[in-house]
Amino acid sequence: MNILIIGGGGFIGQKLARRLAARATLRGQEISGLTLADIAAPDAPEAPFDIATTACDITDRTAIDSLMAPGFDAIFLLAAVVSSHAEAEFEDGMKVNLHGALNVLEAARLQGRAPVLVFTSSLAVFGGEVPDPIRDWTIPNPQTSYGTQKAIGELLVNDYSRRGFVDGRTLRLPTISVRPGKPNRAASSFMSSIIREPLSRQEAVCPVDPDFEHYYLSPRLCVENLIRGAEIEAADLGQSRTMIMPGQRLSIRQMIEAMTAVAGPEPAKLIRFEDDPAIRDIVSGWRFDYDPAKALALGLEADDSFEDNVRHYLQDDRPA
Amino acid sequence: MNILIIGGGGFIGQKLARRLAARATLRGQEISGLTLADIAAPDAPEAPFDIATTACDITDRTAIDSLMAPGFDAIFLLAAVVSSHAEAEFEDGMKVNLHGALNVLEAARLQGRAPVLVFTSSLAVFGGEVPDPIRDWTIPNPQTSYGTQKAIGELLVNDYSRRGFVDGRTLRLPTISVRPGKPNRAASSFMSSIIREPLSRQEAVCPVDPDFEHYYLSPRLCVENLIRGAEIEAADLGQSRTMIMPGQRLSIRQMIEAMTAVAGPEPAKLIRFEDDPAIRDIVSGWRFDYDPAKALALGLEADDSFEDNVRHYLQDDRPA
Ligand SMILES: NC(=O)c1ccc[n+]([C@@H]2O[C@H](COP(=O)([O-])OP(=O)(O)OC[C@H]3O[C@@H](n4cnc5c(N)ncnc54)[C@H](O)[C@@H]3O)[C@@H](O)[C@H]2O)c1
Ligand SMILES: NC(=O)c1ccc[n+]([C@@H]2O[C@H](COP(=O)([O-])OP(=O)(O)OC[C@H]3O[C@@H](n4cnc5c(N)ncnc54)[C@H](O)[C@@H]3O)[C@@H](O)[C@H]2O)c1
Repeated sequence: MNILIIGGGGFIGQKLARRLAARATLRGQEISGLTLADIAAPDAPEAPFDIATTACDITDRTAIDSLMAPGFDAIFLLAAVVSSHAEAEFEDGMKVNLHGALNVLEAARLQGRAPVLVFTSSLAVFGGEVPDPIRDWTIPNPQTSYGTQKAIGELLVNDYSRRGFVDGRTLRLPTISVRPGKPNRAASSFMSSIIREPLSRQEAVCPVDPDFEHYYLSPRLCVENLIRGAEIEAADLGQSRTMIMPGQRLSIRQMIEAMTAVAGPEPAKLIRFEDDPAIRDIVSGWRFDYDPAKALALGLEADDSFEDNVRHYLQDDRPA
Repeated sequence: MNILIIGGGGFIGQKLARRLAARATLRGQEISGLTLADIAAPDAPEAPFDIATTACDITDRTAIDSLMAPGFDAIFLLAAVVSSHAEAEFEDGMKVNLHGALNVLEAARLQGRAPVLVFTSSLAVFGGEVPDPIRDWTIPNPQTSYGTQKAIGELLVNDYSRRGFVDGRTLRLPTISVRPGKPNRAASSFMSSIIREPLSRQEAVCPVDPDFEHYYLSPRLCVENLIRGAEIEAADLGQSRTMIMPGQRLSIRQMIEAMTAVAGPEPAKLIRFEDDPAIRDIVSGWRFDYDPAKALALGLEADDSFEDNVRHYLQDDRPA
């Protein structure tokens, strides 16, 4: 079982690599090798099998062809420019999220090995005039360029799978929280920082009120679900390879209460509520009511409670 | 009002050109010029305004850029390779239906004029496990490469419109019948030839039984609906530019009865029912129960009865 992670230097890619190193198997087979590719050669974890790291820009078809030349049994396609970037820089988003994904699919098609391909889509494919709850079968009506590019990726993965070019599985990720590291300029940044910063005794600003609801999953369960996604039998996927990855609908208040339950009352005092109309306008358009029936039936899971997300963060990610 | 029809040499493109020539206005403005572009320079109808015809391959970005350089107020993007072709020749379909459409959208974006753009999608975007009736908001789950490529075009037209690069409208066409000319290798070919051939005193073979149902529109109403599609106010389109073009659900028996009502009992005697399992397998997977609510609300129409389709064919298309 020779595995490739494209976008292996990113937040989820790095965690997935560590988890694969710890498991040493995928789809019931021993992992013989793992290649991590990203714009710059990523870090590699310790592992009981060969790990290669390499710089590869997925917008460069020649680079993708040579990256994939050795032949892989399973590919995780995580490389993407994120929502705010794709909205601010239309051409970057089209190049990476659309043409980059097409380059990977085309390279796989021409290799003729039909690898398992796990593609990370996003709940950002949903939007516009559709009723709650959003189901696996709700029409994607993206209201961002990022969501559009992901929805196109979903369609391509379906067709390339139907034709037998790849054995694809597309998972629409919830917002992953608690994300380690620094705040970034994404509108969703506060959804991690209001937990992460206070747990490190730093102040955090929450730009929406405590009743604001959203749909979350911990990084640990996200990685677990990507692995389970790779392990589903193709025959169990039906006539679409796409599904919502399970998450939890939570208010800011519930998240803070969970942090308090795990870490005591002090961190919550470091959160300052400060209305930010620009952020509020963006995130209040986001949807939070999802029914991930297909993934649940196929064995994917959400966290039991946000207390788990907080605990996982403390165990896996909090800076020493 | 300077208009461009890409795919202007095709069946619908030619009829649309003739209709625009007869109307001489679009969106309440006089038409000042019409350009018909296709792989080979198409025929031009007589018109009270300038008509140019030109050869342009939409897979060639440079050719598209120079085609669009004069600047157009309205563009009809009809060029496509059809279903059976895109399924048999995967690369052709991707090149024309996906990259060709992208070339047109990109050229429009970089021109910065935000032209009205009417894109012809297809009911082939639907398929798989979705309930009847199929509505504007049913998830596209295409089970062909053609349907996939059209569904991607829909998403792109929506995003390019949302961003103000074009003022797009996407119409999902029913099967157009009665299509003039010769039978072709499309699985749907019999849906026109069982009417067209008998009306010219020729035999026709019907490969499915008389109860077989499908969703149809006449070429005349199709062209009328494309024009109305161009005339809808952008503000009335909501958060998606896509809609099902109205048609009629009919059985083969109803179509034949309509022909008999218009043309007497002789033509029907020239239809031979001869089961063709290959064709039956393909077309029995097609859907026929649609609710085109959005287009109806916006003033698009279906034929009143299939008798109209037969009459239009006799008036507009039957060889002398
Ligand atoms: N984290 C979330 O909350 C979330 C939510 C929904 C979807 N997703 C999706 O999950 C995937 C992984 O997300 P993440 O949080 O790890 O993002 P990330 O930004 O941390 O990682 C993405 C990686 O892709 C790489 N990349 C970007 N352009 C590239 C190119 N041209 N060639 C090669 N590599 C390139 C980046 O360098 C980065 O390392 C992405 O596809 C993302 O869209 C994430
Ligand atoms: N007729 C139907 O029943 C039907 C149903 C659903 C959708 N549609 C869609 O409506 C549109 C028009 O259909 P039609 O019946 O007139 O088809 P058609 O095949 O008669 O016309 C399509 C035209 O596109 C041109 N074309 C193909 N590749 C091209 C390229 N690379 N560059 C430039 N031109 C190219 C062809 O030469 C042809 O003249 C198409 O987009 C089709 O997919 C038609």
